[in-house]
Amino acid sequence: MNKYAQLRQNAYDANMQLPRLGLVLFTFGNVSVADRNLGVFAIKPSGIPYEELTPDKMVVVDFNGKTVEGTLRPSSDTLTHAVLYKEWPLIGGIVHTHSTYATAWAQSLRDIPIYGTTHADHLTCDIPCTPPMEDNMIEGNYEHETGYQIINCMKWKELDYEEVEMILVGNHGPFTWGKTPENAVYNSAILEELATTSCLTERIRPGVDRMKEALIRKHYERKHGPGSYYGQG
Amino acid sequence: MNKYAQLRQNAYDANMQLPRLGLVLFTFGNVSVADRNLGVFAIKPSGIPYEELTPDKMVVVDFNGKTVEGTLRPSSDTLTHAVLYKEWPLIGGIVHTHSTYATAWAQSLRDIPIYGTTHADHLTCDIPCTPPMEDNMIEGNYEHETGYQIINCMKWKELDYEEVEMILVGNHGPFTWGKTPENAVYNSAILEELATTSCLTERIRPGVDRMKEALIRKHYERKHGPGSYYGQG
Amino acid sequence: MNKYAQLRQNAYDANMQLPRLGLVLFTFGNVSVADRNLGVFAIKPSGIPYEELTPDKMVVVDFNGKTVEGTLRPSSDTLTHAVLYKEWPLIGGIVHTHSTYATAWAQSLRDIPIYGTTHADHLTCDIPCTPPMEDNMIEGNYEHETGYQIINCMKWKELDYEEVEMILVGNHGPFTWGKTPENAVYNSAILEELATTSCLTERIRPGVDRMKEALIRKHYERKHGPGSYYGQG
Amino acid sequence: MNKYAQLRQNAYDANMQLPRLGLVLFTFGNVSVADRNLGVFAIKPSGIPYEELTPDKMVVVDFNGKTVEGTLRPSSDTLTHAVLYKEWPLIGGIVHTHSTYATAWAQSLRDIPIYGTTHADHLTCDIPCTPPMEDNMIEGNYEHETGYQIINCMKWKELDYEEVEMILVGNHGPFTWGKTPENAVYNSAILEELATTSCLTERIRPGVDRMKEALIRKHYERKHGPGSYYGQG
Repeated sequence: MNKYAQLRQNAYDANMQLPRLGLVLFTFGNVSVADRNLGVFAIKPSGIPYEELTPDKMVVVDFNGKTVEGTLRPSSDTLTHAVLYKEWPLIGGIVHTHSTYATAWAQSLRDIPIYGTTHADHLTCDIPCTPPMEDNMIEGNYEHETGYQIINCMKWKELDYEEVEMILVGNHGPFTWGKTPENAVYNSAILEELATTSCLTERIRPGVDRMKEALIRKHYERKHGPGSYYGQG
Repeated sequence: MNKYAQLRQNAYDANMQLPRLGLVLFTFGNVSVADRNLGVFAIKPSGIPYEELTPDKMVVVDFNGKTVEGTLRPSSDTLTHAVLYKEWPLIGGIVHTHSTYATAWAQSLRDIPIYGTTHADHLTCDIPCTPPMEDNMIEGNYEHETGYQIINCMKWKELDYEEVEMILVGNHGPFTWGKTPENAVYNSAILEELATTSCLTERIRPGVDRMKEALIRKHYERKHGPGSYYGQG
Repeated sequence: MNKYAQLRQNAYDANMQLPRLGLVLFTFGNVSVADRNLGVFAIKPSGIPYEELTPDKMVVVDFNGKTVEGTLRPSSDTLTHAVLYKEWPLIGGIVHTHSTYATAWAQSLRDIPIYGTTHADHLTCDIPCTPPMEDNMIEGNYEHETGYQIINCMKWKELDYEEVEMILVGNHGPFTWGKTPENAVYNSAILEELATTSCLTERIRPGVDRMKEALIRKHYERKHGPGSYYGQG
Repeated sequence: MNKYAQLRQNAYDANMQLPRLGLVLFTFGNVSVADRNLGVFAIKPSGIPYEELTPDKMVVVDFNGKTVEGTLRPSSDTLTHAVLYKEWPLIGGIVHTHSTYATAWAQSLRDIPIYGTTHADHLTCDIPCTPPMEDNMIEGNYEHETGYQIINCMKWKELDYEEVEMILVGNHGPFTWGKTPENAVYNSAILEELATTSCLTERIRPGVDRMKEALIRKHYERKHGPGSYYGQG
């Protein structure tokens, strides 16, 4: 059996979750899955509708974005994925979608404020939105620069990629990641839900305050870290 | 047959209504069902996806929240349920969800105003939202305190738990209850609908007034109390 | 065969369209179907979930709202239907729902303004919303008075029930009717769509103007009246 | 085999995509498909529900809108399609819907601003909305004039129909087109998504700016033109 067969199957399975979760329209969006031992990741081919995908059509590329196996052209966002895998050694999957509410926040160039415990169950800060890129970055190696825009925004805001697993690329849309591809896909669905609820919260009460620190910490620690007691441990 | 078998089955059935009614995403939300004779309730295990639930996985706990039967860890909100069952002897089921519009109201820390007869068919006042808890309550026995926050908010507002079967926990989300688990689940769906319609009503007419008292009373009494004539009696 | 069998079947079929069109939650909403020769109409029984309905459960009542056949209690709104059938000899079906956007407009006590051709394809004026009823009407024969509130609102606004087949009862929700029950159900779905689109239009452009008279007339006459050329005529 | 059989089949297939994509309610909306060699197009008959359509019911008309084959009356918008086919030799399909958000923008008489890369992936300018027609145009050959209103609006704004394949007819709703009927249907779904996201973007950040020129150009050129690298080329 081809040594990438399982990886391609995993990438296929993860990609097929996106339409099931209502996160993509037509060919938009893509998931990649990394194999750290083999030093590669498998990613959706560019512009192929989800209903025509098969595990065989997944493209295997290295962390410089060079195709290692596969006859199709990989997702046009492949270099963004490659940069993130190279910079962040502990992530196993990356997801990009154009899900409706998260994209609207990205287009408004606003971080998503933390208003409730659903948010605090997953992260303790606002969901970051990168500023627009400089023109020379856009006109240069655009997808590569998108990866650095994400990494730099996390640095500017002093965020840890193991704790904050989601970001909005300004004017574009959401990227999420995780230790596993399942986590990364889960984070995309959570982000869309948080984007929806925060938008509605501001409509119901314009000028609403962020939730209090103690409640943020409590909910995050209930699910994460040494004293957590959510789930089956 | 195990003496808790029927109770676990009932808890399973009630929990499975939540995804069917579109009230939960992933593992969020939980339903419990009480057996007053046996002095216990059965509740969803923590962090298990709905599609993996079985009646056997329900956890049976007493009204102090101590596990009586079951190998899985019960929902992290178990102590909140326990407090409510202990304080309110006539309820048979409790539901907690993060349904989208109800959660947005909870995050805005606003009661849901009574604007129409759909609301008055179910309760005669605004749907209460608890204030945020004090830091020492959050940092103490949090889920236990959440139960008391609900009970105290009902007292402050002079509400009867047999008439008002739903509340928003500020910054968190909705809790509903009822004489039976079916009633409690029904109330969660109604609350989400009322949260949606009230939000839209304020958007269509900012500053809109509450509906008039006579109409509130008429609709509530049509469905509840001695002279009611809705349903098959 | 029972002389009401076909009428009950028709009422059943029409009622079952409501959940299919996404216009009702639980037991809310009801459709009735009139037989003018027999001087009766069949209506949904009160408080029965749609999935438990059968043609046999439909209740046959006369135009004073008195049960003629059937063992179940008819819809609590039966007298409203009866009044409308009595006053308006050319209607064959009536529908009441609590569909989300139409209910929000009713709760805001606003007529739905005519902003586009989808609206003008069906009626040439704003969709009327009745004012709240006087307290003595609410405390008297409420459902009967609801019927008169509808009829009087149409008179005040000089609207013809054969041209304007939909209304919002203030603080309550929509009622629609039509020459046939199919028309009445169709009108409920159209009303919900117009309520949605008008709400969005005002959000996109606060203070937007109604559409121009010439375009209203053109679209209405394309579908209705002597020179109509929409459909297979 | 009838020389129009394939054309009718194609028109049927394209029309049936509209309900699947959630773009139409009841009989609203229509797709036509042109055969440039035969000098005709096939279009949906007027007022027939989608579930009753068959390829045989499609009506074949020439570019003056005269029926060439078919017993049913063609869509009431047929003359609008005819004008566009005549004026724009390189389009192979046209779609008209009343999809909710796009219609709301049309009713607000506003162009849809370009706020994000999903928009720039498809066109580099705001989505145009025609002004209302003059009364004499409405009262004259209305559907014919609607076609010219579209063509003239494109001219006033100096837009190329091969680059901008969608427009809003003021107070009415969206029209889209494309080299193939599949493209035209795809554009209707994209337009509805852009209309939704732009509406939400303005709600999240009132007064938000259009995205920067460099990013618009980059995304458009990634998918279109000589250096494009999206899809399988």
